[in-house]
Amino acid sequence: MPKSKLLRDKFRDLKILRVAGAYNSLFAKIVENIGFDAVWVSGLELSTSRAVPDASILTMTDFADASRLINRSVNIPVIADCDAGFGTAANVHYMVKEYECNGVAAICIEDKTHPKLNSLLSGMQTLVPADEFAGKIHAAKDAQSGDDFMVIARTEAMISGMGCDEALRRAYIYRDAGADAILVHSKSNSHNQIAEFMEHWDMTIPVVIVPTTYPITVDEAYRLGIKMIIYANHGIRAAVKACNQVYSKILIDGTTQTVENDIAPVSDLFELQGIDHLRSVEKRFVRR
Amino acid sequence: MPKSKLLRDKFRDLKILRVAGAYNSLFAKIVENIGFDAVWVSGLELSTSRAVPDASILTMTDFADASRLINRSVNIPVIADCDAGFGTAANVHYMVKEYECNGVAAICIEDKTHPKLNSLLSGMQTLVPADEFAGKIHAAKDAQSGDDFMVIARTEAMISGMGCDEALRRAYIYRDAGADAILVHSKSNSHNQIAEFMEHWDMTIPVVIVPTTYPITVDEAYRLGIKMIIYANHGIRAAVKACNQVYSKILIDGTTQTVENDIAPVSDLFELQGIDHLRSVEKRFVRR
Amino acid sequence: MPKSKLLRDKFRDLKILRVAGAYNSLFAKIVENIGFDAVWVSGLELSTSRAVPDASILTMTDFADASRLINRSVNIPVIADCDAGFGTAANVHYMVKEYECNGVAAICIEDKTHPKLNSLLSGMQTLVPADEFAGKIHAAKDAQSGDDFMVIARTEAMISGMGCDEALRRAYIYRDAGADAILVHSKSNSHNQIAEFMEHWDMTIPVVIVPTTYPITVDEAYRLGIKMIIYANHGIRAAVKACNQVYSKILIDGTTQTVENDIAPVSDLFELQGIDHLRSVEKRFVRR
Amino acid sequence: MPKSKLLRDKFRDLKILRVAGAYNSLFAKIVENIGFDAVWVSGLELSTSRAVPDASILTMTDFADASRLINRSVNIPVIADCDAGFGTAANVHYMVKEYECNGVAAICIEDKTHPKLNSLLSGMQTLVPADEFAGKIHAAKDAQSGDDFMVIARTEAMISGMGCDEALRRAYIYRDAGADAILVHSKSNSHNQIAEFMEHWDMTIPVVIVPTTYPITVDEAYRLGIKMIIYANHGIRAAVKACNQVYSKILIDGTTQTVENDIAPVSDLFELQGIDHLRSVEKRFVRR
Repeated sequence: MPKSKLLRDKFRDLKILRVAGAYNSLFAKIVENIGFDAVWVSGLELSTSRAVPDASILTMTDFADASRLINRSVNIPVIADCDAGFGTAANVHYMVKEYECNGVAAICIEDKTHPKLNSLLSGMQTLVPADEFAGKIHAAKDAQSGDDFMVIARTEAMISGMGCDEALRRAYIYRDAGADAILVHSKSNSHNQIAEFMEHWDMTIPVVIVPTTYPITVDEAYRLGIKMIIYANHGIRAAVKACNQVYSKILIDGTTQTVENDIAPVSDLFELQGIDHLRSVEKRFVRR
Repeated sequence: MPKSKLLRDKFRDLKILRVAGAYNSLFAKIVENIGFDAVWVSGLELSTSRAVPDASILTMTDFADASRLINRSVNIPVIADCDAGFGTAANVHYMVKEYECNGVAAICIEDKTHPKLNSLLSGMQTLVPADEFAGKIHAAKDAQSGDDFMVIARTEAMISGMGCDEALRRAYIYRDAGADAILVHSKSNSHNQIAEFMEHWDMTIPVVIVPTTYPITVDEAYRLGIKMIIYANHGIRAAVKACNQVYSKILIDGTTQTVENDIAPVSDLFELQGIDHLRSVEKRFVRR
Repeated sequence: MPKSKLLRDKFRDLKILRVAGAYNSLFAKIVENIGFDAVWVSGLELSTSRAVPDASILTMTDFADASRLINRSVNIPVIADCDAGFGTAANVHYMVKEYECNGVAAICIEDKTHPKLNSLLSGMQTLVPADEFAGKIHAAKDAQSGDDFMVIARTEAMISGMGCDEALRRAYIYRDAGADAILVHSKSNSHNQIAEFMEHWDMTIPVVIVPTTYPITVDEAYRLGIKMIIYANHGIRAAVKACNQVYSKILIDGTTQTVENDIAPVSDLFELQGIDHLRSVEKRFVRR
Repeated sequence: MPKSKLLRDKFRDLKILRVAGAYNSLFAKIVENIGFDAVWVSGLELSTSRAVPDASILTMTDFADASRLINRSVNIPVIADCDAGFGTAANVHYMVKEYECNGVAAICIEDKTHPKLNSLLSGMQTLVPADEFAGKIHAAKDAQSGDDFMVIARTEAMISGMGCDEALRRAYIYRDAGADAILVHSKSNSHNQIAEFMEHWDMTIPVVIVPTTYPITVDEAYRLGIKMIIYANHGIRAAVKACNQVYSKILIDGTTQTVENDIAPVSDLFELQGIDHLRSVEKRFVRR
């Protein structure tokens, strides 16, 4: 079954979908092993992994290659954060063909200008006109070849300070343009903005949220009618803190003995590499 | 100053050098920020990050690209784990030109057959004849264009069960072939093998160790005459454990609130991305 | 229809298949436009395009990426030259998964040692034992997930000077190991070696030839029972000669006017780029 | 000597510089062997080689990787066509650091909007305000670390139909912003536009032309005061025509014999690969 079909089917389930961010195969495998429904290939994480600002310094090539390699490593669907579509609606058309070829189940594009700046940073959070962005959604839907591939339209209206009404206005335009889901983003420190949006949303297509700055429980989200929660960057944030602590301790203590309990055994790495599969392949086919 | 010169100078210091593993720019920046002397681009970490066995499934292209991107992100020298040189001495010759162009300060090649298997795994740990490996060292030294670029010769004699005498015999041959340092590897659970090696080593060129299975303090290593300690994979092991715990907790608890203390704030990510630099560049040059 | 199915169907045709070499999307499109049955992604061409010897200096990553990009640009099937499989049968197993994901319809592996040297060069043309190579074929067939993906086994027995009997002995072993076709290579200046091979071949699986050093017409090949002819490197050789002549003339004549008849108009480039498609996408979706 | 120094020195020569386009190492080597002063890594050629429109479908990553690989293969300087700088002045700042690291001697940016469309196509040829583009030039000059790295500012004023006065107005602004040379582009079918520009140019910094649609001899260009002529796409156009002809002939004639005189011998490919170097390396270092 294609992964896009798998994701569509999950969307038809009654339960809320839970998705976690990853920027490479390793973290994607962890996301899969723990039991999340899908992997979110996060632009913030990708930029951080390359130590460059999340401001269109990395390119579509970098993003698409990461999604492709990640998709090959897991059996759960991959949802790709595609920023503002890396250009015009024409760029989006070519982009969707690339991502679909790479096995990605869904892409998400946002209504900011390209180049973009991360939503959680102050400054340039300008949106393109709703009609221009609708053109990108049309282009994306036109470009896909499989029926199940999904296009998630993300509105940054509340990020840009335009408020809930504008978010709703745009969400309806994007839905009419063919979007399969709406991602409504907020950097509030409570989920009030999201709640307000959901109050006026007619549920014709599912809503996705990315709670980074505001707390929300799965139950709260479910009651609001949210269909998918993306924990977009908690994995890399855990990794950064842990790596910092462990390497600092090694440098200060002058030994690795004091950190042995804070790190996975090497055997865990081998398992994540799929060492058993290699052993089996070697045993069956390698003659020396 | 070229990074290879920087590394050479550090080798001339009296103090022991401490190096930590990384497989991308993010973790390399953490290694630099904490204060390590150099970054080790680890084959085990790279393979794990791609979720494939550390068994020459990734190629020289994958390894060299990672080293190049990492080198661009940090100011400390990069030392690249180059497995068995990805082929014959001819491959090594082309490889060194590639790595040197990529700004890498030193490469490390090991005397196992290519394709190789990770040293900590049981099974195929066959060595090539010492003379054949000496040819690789000759090739590497011939290929480098700068004076300071370093070639570290790693003997797996004790990994392959051949014992300390064979390790020493090979180390002397590799030194005579032009190696700038010897990495003597052991998977013992104590540092006895390393100590035995150092007892009979004449200190003509520096010795490097990678203590993964055996504990050793910096003071113990210093007293043995070790010049460089590489903590090759503790960063990724910290990350794997932390990411597993945090994502598991989010899935079970149904909220991110219970993990907030276990993860770095988003602002740490922006800092690692170099957001201040972007802000300054935008302020100075972008006119809208 | 998957491209591997398309290629299988062509193999079931009565007519001989004609395939031409390409190393990027441009030349692959030319191959398609002219009417060849498939594209051969040639290792010799790829190495030449990067100006490095055809001697395993480029890696599986380089080869697989080229095949992937080429496959996306054409509608005819892509057959990938995979040298000796880039390592052991274990490497072949991982390799086939990669190539199949990349949309390649068939791979070809040869029974030389890895690293390899181009077949038309004197020197190192050592073969691995037939049994070891059979393991690679088994691994390849085990790794594929689609039914139609093809594994072409190439014997270099006549290249290595072992003669026709050894070529036949190996061909039968490779067939029994599961090969879907046999590529029998020769660097003779006549097709006598090929004819001799065909005389003793029982036609249980199809035979493929790569006539670079020897002349053979399609009719002659057909009468011998050959199923596929690969013109592996004539495109790049035409390009090299033409580019040399045109750029030389421009430098000597001090103008481009004397070469205008020897070069394609710029409009041909735009057509090969698919400019009409871009125009249509822009018209339909881009709103400014 | 760094290649940027080499290029600077050539600019100080009395003679006119002649540069030819290439999109990979093979054609760059041909350009070098014939005797051109530098290689132009052409966006039109790169896009054509990937069979996608020259309209910002390929990304900075694709362009920069090509320049890097090309630079490693030749001893002459590489000048990189960088379209409109792939975004804002902030993107240009990061871009220049990347290209300089890759060994490129000079980059060329144009004053069109990003995403861009090839200059020779009708349609969207909108320019950004001169002041905004001056910010990109400032950013580029600020980003470079070596003294000799060159930033060529390309004005498309005459391409966009704004005429010679606007081209001159912009050229002076770009010079004042720090540009090391001005590329003045024209798609006229005579060199009248160029001649008019040169009449009013004060020669404070050198002028570069790309004669694709208009004929001009080296002597004519020299008399106009032009410092560099770039033959941007004649190599690929020669290759396309030749490959088309040769492969068509093979398909029609059913043999390669009728094309042998139209293609380079295989030995030419081996020579371009540097086979002698491999032979020497193998002889000196490989022990089997």
